[in-house]
Amino acid sequence: MKNDLNEKKAYWIWYPGDWEVWLHEQVSIKRQWREVMYPPYWRLDRHYSSVIYTYTYHLTQPEEITITADGRFAAYLDGKDNQRSNAEKMMLPEGKHELSITVYNDVNPPALHIEGEHVYTNNTWQVSCYDKKWSPVGSWKEQLDASSLAPSQYKLATEEHQPASIEKTEDGWMADFGKETVGYLKVNGIDGKSRLTVYYGESMEEVEDRENCVLLDNVFLDGESEDYTFPASRAFRYAQVVPESEDFQIDSISMLYEYLPVEYRSNFQSSNDLLNDIWKTSVYTFHLNTREFFFDGMKRDRWVWSGDAHQSFLMNYYSFFDHDVVKRTLIALRGKEPIVTHINTILDYSLYWFTGIYDYYLYTGDVEFVKSQYNSMVSLMDFCLGRRNAEDMMEGIEEDWVFVDWADIDNKGEVSTIQILLCRSLETMALVAELVGDKDSVQNYHDQASELKEKIMSIFWNENKGGLVHSRYNGVLSDEITKYPNMFALLFGYFNDQQIDKVKNNVMLNSEVQAIKTPYMRFFELAALCEVGEHQFVLDEMLSYWGGMLALGATSFWEEYDPNQSGRQHLEMYNMPYGKSLCHAWGASPIYLIGKYFLGVTPASPGYENFVIEPQLGGLDWFEGTVPIGIGDAEVYMDKEKIRVKASHGEGVLRYKLNEEPHETPIPTDGSWLEIPLI
Amino acid sequence: MKNDLNEKKAYWIWYPGDWEVWLHEQVSIKRQWREVMYPPYWRLDRHYSSVIYTYTYHLTQPEEITITADGRFAAYLDGKDNQRSNAEKMMLPEGKHELSITVYNDVNPPALHIEGEHVYTNNTWQVSCYDKKWSPVGSWKEQLDASSLAPSQYKLATEEHQPASIEKTEDGWMADFGKETVGYLKVNGIDGKSRLTVYYGESMEEVEDRENCVLLDNVFLDGESEDYTFPASRAFRYAQVVPESEDFQIDSISMLYEYLPVEYRSNFQSSNDLLNDIWKTSVYTFHLNTREFFFDGMKRDRWVWSGDAHQSFLMNYYSFFDHDVVKRTLIALRGKEPIVTHINTILDYSLYWFTGIYDYYLYTGDVEFVKSQYNSMVSLMDFCLGRRNAEDMMEGIEEDWVFVDWADIDNKGEVSTIQILLCRSLETMALVAELVGDKDSVQNYHDQASELKEKIMSIFWNENKGGLVHSRYNGVLSDEITKYPNMFALLFGYFNDQQIDKVKNNVMLNSEVQAIKTPYMRFFELAALCEVGEHQFVLDEMLSYWGGMLALGATSFWEEYDPNQSGRQHLEMYNMPYGKSLCHAWGASPIYLIGKYFLGVTPASPGYENFVIEPQLGGLDWFEGTVPIGIGDAEVYMDKEKIRVKASHGEGVLRYKLNEEPHETPIPTDGSWLEIPLI
Repeated sequence: MKNDLNEKKAYWIWYPGDWEVWLHEQVSIKRQWREVMYPPYWRLDRHYSSVIYTYTYHLTQPEEITITADGRFAAYLDGKDNQRSNAEKMMLPEGKHELSITVYNDVNPPALHIEGEHVYTNNTWQVSCYDKKWSPVGSWKEQLDASSLAPSQYKLATEEHQPASIEKTEDGWMADFGKETVGYLKVNGIDGKSRLTVYYGESMEEVEDRENCVLLDNVFLDGESEDYTFPASRAFRYAQVVPESEDFQIDSISMLYEYLPVEYRSNFQSSNDLLNDIWKTSVYTFHLNTREFFFDGMKRDRWVWSGDAHQSFLMNYYSFFDHDVVKRTLIALRGKEPIVTHINTILDYSLYWFTGIYDYYLYTGDVEFVKSQYNSMVSLMDFCLGRRNAEDMMEGIEEDWVFVDWADIDNKGEVSTIQILLCRSLETMALVAELVGDKDSVQNYHDQASELKEKIMSIFWNENKGGLVHSRYNGVLSDEITKYPNMFALLFGYFNDQQIDKVKNNVMLNSEVQAIKTPYMRFFELAALCEVGEHQFVLDEMLSYWGGMLALGATSFWEEYDPNQSGRQHLEMYNMPYGKSLCHAWGASPIYLIGKYFLGVTPASPGYENFVIEPQLGGLDWFEGTVPIGIGDAEVYMDKEKIRVKASHGEGVLRYKLNEEPHETPIPTDGSWLEIPLI
Repeated sequence: MKNDLNEKKAYWIWYPGDWEVWLHEQVSIKRQWREVMYPPYWRLDRHYSSVIYTYTYHLTQPEEITITADGRFAAYLDGKDNQRSNAEKMMLPEGKHELSITVYNDVNPPALHIEGEHVYTNNTWQVSCYDKKWSPVGSWKEQLDASSLAPSQYKLATEEHQPASIEKTEDGWMADFGKETVGYLKVNGIDGKSRLTVYYGESMEEVEDRENCVLLDNVFLDGESEDYTFPASRAFRYAQVVPESEDFQIDSISMLYEYLPVEYRSNFQSSNDLLNDIWKTSVYTFHLNTREFFFDGMKRDRWVWSGDAHQSFLMNYYSFFDHDVVKRTLIALRGKEPIVTHINTILDYSLYWFTGIYDYYLYTGDVEFVKSQYNSMVSLMDFCLGRRNAEDMMEGIEEDWVFVDWADIDNKGEVSTIQILLCRSLETMALVAELVGDKDSVQNYHDQASELKEKIMSIFWNENKGGLVHSRYNGVLSDEITKYPNMFALLFGYFNDQQIDKVKNNVMLNSEVQAIKTPYMRFFELAALCEVGEHQFVLDEMLSYWGGMLALGATSFWEEYDPNQSGRQHLEMYNMPYGKSLCHAWGASPIYLIGKYFLGVTPASPGYENFVIEPQLGGLDWFEGTVPIGIGDAEVYMDKEKIRVKASHGEGVLRYKLNEEPHETPIPTDGSWLEIPLI
């Protein structure tokens, strides 16, 4: 065996999922309301405090290893647990031996790092929480490799940013950072001592309203340090700094912008400047919410919600293509056994978790991760299936929250959207059961999905109205059509051609059907419209809806936007004058709509081994852009006269129409450009 | 409402079981092997870090409350969670309002203490771990009431003890505390600085063997303090203190004896001084192991084992009658969901947990506690029943450890003892199902118990040999009789009169049947022999077995005692020269045997509302003693000429024989003596 000691090879290992679960616990309680704690509405799971690692080595000569544990540890060989050591250096005898290390830490995950020439911690180690089961360890080779940085010490990156302007106010200073940002406020050049209050605002209205702004900090500065960085990371554009003492002075205000280092792997430029701004603002909004996990919004909740995350996953595939944050988010959302409520306590949010797995596999092809989640999937699916009614459909029981959308809708009884999501979840189960070789279950899940799909169409399809109705309650079928079930059925390909046509005109483009007011559900609505070829319509919607927010001065996209509201109404939500998040991940969906439906890049097999590019101008004069396709990238240019594409990975085809006739041309696999004239 | 503010009424509350689970986690990792950590072989469960308390009050005028939380908290009224406060003082408005307090603590249980005139924390509050369920809170009114002492700060009591002797040795000092003890060693009158090593021993052999003694401490003393108390509580009789520096001096060695304050509610004196010593040493042994929980032994494991605890529960009813330590132990053993292994990973130990519940209810009548455990019982029983084989019997599957006893026995397949314990567990389920009003389950558990009992007798009873055989493996019935199943069936009353007679002579008194070598199983063996009237035999056994340990210098009773061993053999176990615990709870069973079978005090209905006293001299000339009977006590005197009893609680009968004829006489309920002449 040849090894280079200078090569990084040892990395931290832990009980699978426990670092993620612990990190989720820690970040979930960062939400505050005016300095008062605001923990999530769901159970926070915890890491195991006592775990044992094992590894069987073969050495031809003795070797010294260095053991670093995050916690107290004991090491022993060959099960001789009455001869244990807690020394940092351990000499391993030659031959074949089983090395066991038990680590305890009730505060941080009891992670382990061992360095030796041949024996070192990596993903071939096994671990147990003393439940008589051994699992492959969890790890993050790329980031958590240095023995000096235990997983519990992991932090996002920071970078000092200056405000666009600072003004002296009557009793303090007002800093405007020019756009929404997230990080640690810093006051520099402190002179004097004083109690200091900072009022934060995503809007000028909020920062000026000292009684009602959502975030504030209050601290006493003793004047002994030249500058002071506030301990909590906040989301804001404006910060008003108000000292109690009139003698207190500062030189400047800055902030440590806090972010997850990601690669910006996509790009978009078009003939429409507003659309270009929408795309850029979307990416910025999305990055602010892409952190330890995919968060919903950073000012208020800063929580991990499964429905929101499901969309973030998709946006991520058209921007950063970061595997790790998807994996962390899926693990954190799923949490630990026993499952006694839905994820985030919301029925639909359990189901989006499955679709998130489906999409992750499709986009990344990371079969190992998907397989590692199979037991967790089975257990959550058992929970869901156990909550079906006599008709084998899911409805909200006990205290389940059936969300679907912030809208005036009645989600009692059998909601058709829920059954469609369940159907897709069962399909995901069948897919992963196949991957792990659980043959009996493949068929079982497959059959259940088919039966449910048939049932959905036979019960909820209203031929007269040309769409799926919203729900059935106590055996009484609603005759109300909503967009929700129809757009999901469109996206999942559950309709036949005839139905597609009807749904498109009678539901999706029908202004009599209740309009959707959240960017959250506009995501699916507009994607579904693209699926039925309404790119021009979707472009107009993007320009008016997201353009509408920009016109109101948005520097990041919002949790909710109703063009019919005005003034301070845009800031209100949840009975709070500034309750609305003005930087919400689900506001960033143009990333996905543009990447998938305008640039037109879609995987056709897991990990983009096969893919399709089907660009659509949708009314634009031209666009050009890049979309990550797994380990490679696809570049797309289109104007009214030609399409040019190239790709650095996989086998792709370009789809386009010439004289209204569909065509397909293979994309060169040598990375060279393919150009197709359109006239 | 009239309230005296000086009266203690507010006390700490927490998520039910979480303080106990947390405390168990903390104490379980105190085991060390020569300063190296030695965590338990089973999963350690953890408290919920984020919980929410709720209480609905009615106030006729506003009232200020003082909030103390162990952790960060937020309080709000009437579900208005966007108007929350973390102030210690809160003014409650008059009227009817719902007060919510959410508390977070990832290190200690997030407990809550609120003091107000009318609104204060007590057991009428509800709590949730955000799983959409509300439970009555956990609390310990008698001990954890002061707002200044959070549950996480709870400590056992200490008391400074001086050694019986201290000798200067070649390179240090040797202290002999005269008997086994548990606590913190202390060196006094320090002069100089030095690294200091302390070698502990339960025996002189151990303390003198620096390379092999199980416990040691190593510390550097900088000479700045006059005395030093070692941070870890140790079990030992001898301590050898060895400084590295020759100039280092101390004046004296003492120790802080650490103990659970309990009431010594029983007493025993008899005509036999050795038996009196056995009883006293048993109580001392038992007290040393009665702490936060009932531990097995304090030198080596200091863990909570269900089989050991089951016996400790019974000893406790004949000594301290401390409810709290029983409840803490049952809660800690049961742990949290999900159940994926047996308690302590041992099949029999899951079953003893149920019998522990059964006995707790019988002795204390504490119906509230038993009911509070019903859900946990159902879940553990479901786990057990789910692990039955096609014959509906339990056997070790996967990696279950089927223990029964430290003995040369084969526990593969269907072990009859296990089925008997399962039967008793099912009876316990039926009993508690009845208490909580779960009618369907009462019948179900009852039927299952009856069927199993029939099956046990029809399969394992060997009419020829006159007893139950040990096991059946792969359909082949063993023809080996062991005492285990026979003594449990005797104790649980599963035999008919004919069987009892056969078992007594062919099994229990048959020297051809494999002898039992652990005090653990001698407990049941001797109890069973008393059940069949062999008091004289049992007395002789106690005098020779426990007397044998005393003759070898025991100051507390051992984990194992084999009279056929000699010298250092008595100290060895688990491949360690001093591996045997010389102070083991299960060594203290004479407390139970004497209280229940000689003094003869037994509850006949829950909580000693009805009871029986049936004293048996068993060959003694006389004895007198006291046994706690719930809130009262029973006093018993007997010699060959008379019996005298009195009781301060419940309705009792005295059972005795006159001229070989059984008699019963009611015991006066006015607390006066009843005297029965026997000749």
